[in-house]
Amino acid sequence: MSTIESPADHFAPTERTTPNRAKERVSYEKAEAYRVLDEALHCDFAFVGRDGAPRVLPTFHVRVDDTLYLHGSTGSSMGMGAREGFAVSVTATIVDGLVFSKSWFHHSMNYRSVVVHAQARLVTDPDERWSAFRALIDRFSEGRSDRSRAASSKENAASALLAIPLAEVSLKQRAGGPNEDPADEDLPYENGVAEVVTTVTGRL
Amino acid sequence: MSTIESPADHFAPTERTTPNRAKERVSYEKAEAYRVLDEALHCDFAFVGRDGAPRVLPTFHVRVDDTLYLHGSTGSSMGMGAREGFAVSVTATIVDGLVFSKSWFHHSMNYRSVVVHAQARLVTDPDERWSAFRALIDRFSEGRSDRSRAASSKENAASALLAIPLAEVSLKQRAGGPNEDPADEDLPYENGVAEVVTTVTGRL
Repeated sequence: MSTIESPADHFAPTERTTPNRAKERVSYEKAEAYRVLDEALHCDFAFVGRDGAPRVLPTFHVRVDDTLYLHGSTGSSMGMGAREGFAVSVTATIVDGLVFSKSWFHHSMNYRSVVVHAQARLVTDPDERWSAFRALIDRFSEGRSDRSRAASSKENAASALLAIPLAEVSLKQRAGGPNEDPADEDLPYENGVAEVVTTVTGRL
Repeated sequence: MSTIESPADHFAPTERTTPNRAKERVSYEKAEAYRVLDEALHCDFAFVGRDGAPRVLPTFHVRVDDTLYLHGSTGSSMGMGAREGFAVSVTATIVDGLVFSKSWFHHSMNYRSVVVHAQARLVTDPDERWSAFRALIDRFSEGRSDRSRAASSKENAASALLAIPLAEVSLKQRAGGPNEDPADEDLPYENGVAEVVTTVTGRL
């Protein structure tokens, strides 16, 4: 990897992670993208079905270093679809605000959204499975895996786990107040941002 | 449509909207699914790229009767990919709680998640575009389209709009407290649900 185009703390842009527009909203900084993956309570996972049509499903995830683990069931579409090295796209999106502009066109949202493209791997190694399941439980609350009964072999066997390498990743985000065309500045409409806040109360 | 398999207030299940497991969590009731689409602040939109790989992108949506409109830009992947009758899958998911069980295996989330499969249509009719854009603005706040400047022809031309017919739709949801195996009931671990609440403050 070139140290110019892709230092260790940045993802190398690819054709799929290079936007056609609003390039100023896109970042390849690892730390920023990982903060979003770590904060998002769920992600959406897309793959191509056997019929050639796209499928998207929500699921729960945890990031461990440069790998994103997705939880599934061996009986679900995700588990059924999982085979060595199949193409997936994953997004985790957090909405931070509704942006009210003086014009329809500049209404927008404040958000942080990570998109990942990868070849997914079905995790079969027992040690990797165990530590990923532990990390998934600990995402609910720090140390929770020590405050609950670990999975039995039967329970373990009923859970599917996909590993998504975090290499082709981009973060798109918007923050701040509304954009306004200069000609709209004097229009008698209110503008501003409504904050969107997600709170989790009562973690055990 | 058969009135037995699909009364007017229910979607007819298809192979893609019939789960392999957890069937008790799936509903085809229109009113329930529409409440989730109307409450979710954003949705994720999947399609198959020209390279055959899946793409998933977040976007903003509005439902008008039995159509879901997705907002895009003519310059974005969504606009570029849009062509008459291309296959898409859309999900809108709301997380309501983190479910702490006495066992790793029964840790779960409370959520409501709609998945739609459809052939998307790029909206070109000027009247349909206008009323869908108005509805998108009014989703930010009731009547907002009358409290902001309507789109100019140039702004209108820069916005892409996809229409997704709501016919192949399912709602998956979980609510309530943790499941516990009878053998775990006496384990000395706390269990319960942490509520996840999303609030929007200061709509204009």
